[in-house]
Amino acid sequence: MNIIEALNWRYATKRMNSNTVPKDKLQIILDAIYLAPSSYGLQPYSIVVIENLELMKKIQPIAYMQPQIIEASVLLVFAAWNCLTQQKIDDYIAHVAQVRNVSEDSLKHLKDEISNLLKNTDEENFCWHAKQSSIALGVALCAAALEQVDSSPMEGFKSADLDEVLHLKDRGLRSVAIMALGYRDMEKDPLAKLTKVRRAKEELFISIQSEIGFTASNINNI
Amino acid sequence: MNIIEALNWRYATKRMNSNTVPKDKLQIILDAIYLAPSSYGLQPYSIVVIENLELMKKIQPIAYMQPQIIEASVLLVFAAWNCLTQQKIDDYIAHVAQVRNVSEDSLKHLKDEISNLLKNTDEENFCWHAKQSSIALGVALCAAALEQVDSSPMEGFKSADLDEVLHLKDRGLRSVAIMALGYRDMEKDPLAKLTKVRRAKEELFISIQSEIGFTASNINNI
Repeated sequence: MNIIEALNWRYATKRMNSNTVPKDKLQIILDAIYLAPSSYGLQPYSIVVIENLELMKKIQPIAYMQPQIIEASVLLVFAAWNCLTQQKIDDYIAHVAQVRNVSEDSLKHLKDEISNLLKNTDEENFCWHAKQSSIALGVALCAAALEQVDSSPMEGFKSADLDEVLHLKDRGLRSVAIMALGYRDMEKDPLAKLTKVRRAKEELFISIQSEIGFTASNINNI
Repeated sequence: MNIIEALNWRYATKRMNSNTVPKDKLQIILDAIYLAPSSYGLQPYSIVVIENLELMKKIQPIAYMQPQIIEASVLLVFAAWNCLTQQKIDDYIAHVAQVRNVSEDSLKHLKDEISNLLKNTDEENFCWHAKQSSIALGVALCAAALEQVDSSPMEGFKSADLDEVLHLKDRGLRSVAIMALGYRDMEKDPLAKLTKVRRAKEELFISIQSEIGFTASNINNI
């Protein structure tokens, strides 16, 4: 199955059949998240991996009783750093130096660039961290679909409550999205058979063919 | 090539050889973006597709003279809606109703949920739109890597200046990221041979095996 077939196959699965995602497939999805790129390579987020049904049951009311929360095999909680600190940047630079076997001095330019972000408010940086975690979420969605694992990316939950249950504040994290992984229940899920809705390609894409301005173009024939 | 091999193969390509990305490969990358999921399916962004060298030359100084801007075959500019309006929501609901052949009344719950976002500030909603566009960027990165097309996702540019050159404000958009697509120049790119740096899996992933608390686990053997 190629990426386009996989993306057409996937949909935001709201009802799952409680079947277990095999370890090797879960590992591929986690490895894809691990390899996802981020600005400066900073990866300013963590992913909480939940396979415990009792905990899922605790999370369900926080997520407005959505059924996939307890019918999934695994929940991945994407949680972004709630703030950026000089310590985090220093740790990252030390890590890059170690992995690439170079001096930290040689990374001064990178360090200065990242440190510039410390001028932003915590909220601005959290927004930026959340954006980075969303790139990883996009990568995870592709990996799951290619492995024929269903997923439901979700923002519909009370973030502060989830942070409390998962002790995320103590870890300097704030939850951004939940990705439920499992297998669709075709009979119970009314969404399973619905037509996928996407904006018209002519609206979604703006094609520039000339220097002077925008040229309307049929993006199907680009 | 599977998704893990593709993600290991890819890197943020800073020097490209000006070779052209074939139309069929570009189409796959754009189709993947088109199919990328977003909250409520709203897709609150557009993607500007630039293949014009003169325009790339205009953009290069805005992106701190980074060479891949003019050595790429195509630039994709991910631009998020600068604000959310009732009109945009109404248009979206009408579109869903049309595609799924249902009444707009039957979508009242969805419409109300999205409309709740109008209580946020424009800046908060822009951040949310940018997050949605980052999911699409993650999907695009996977599609490009699987097609063996090199890419450089970039935030290092003066957003307001790019918006002006591309007349994005008139379209209600603000640039979030540039994705340069092309082919790596192995000789000129010092990054091509560097070891990929990623945070330790034990830090990136938090595995919960029990209800009571966090259990340290070797994520490699999850």
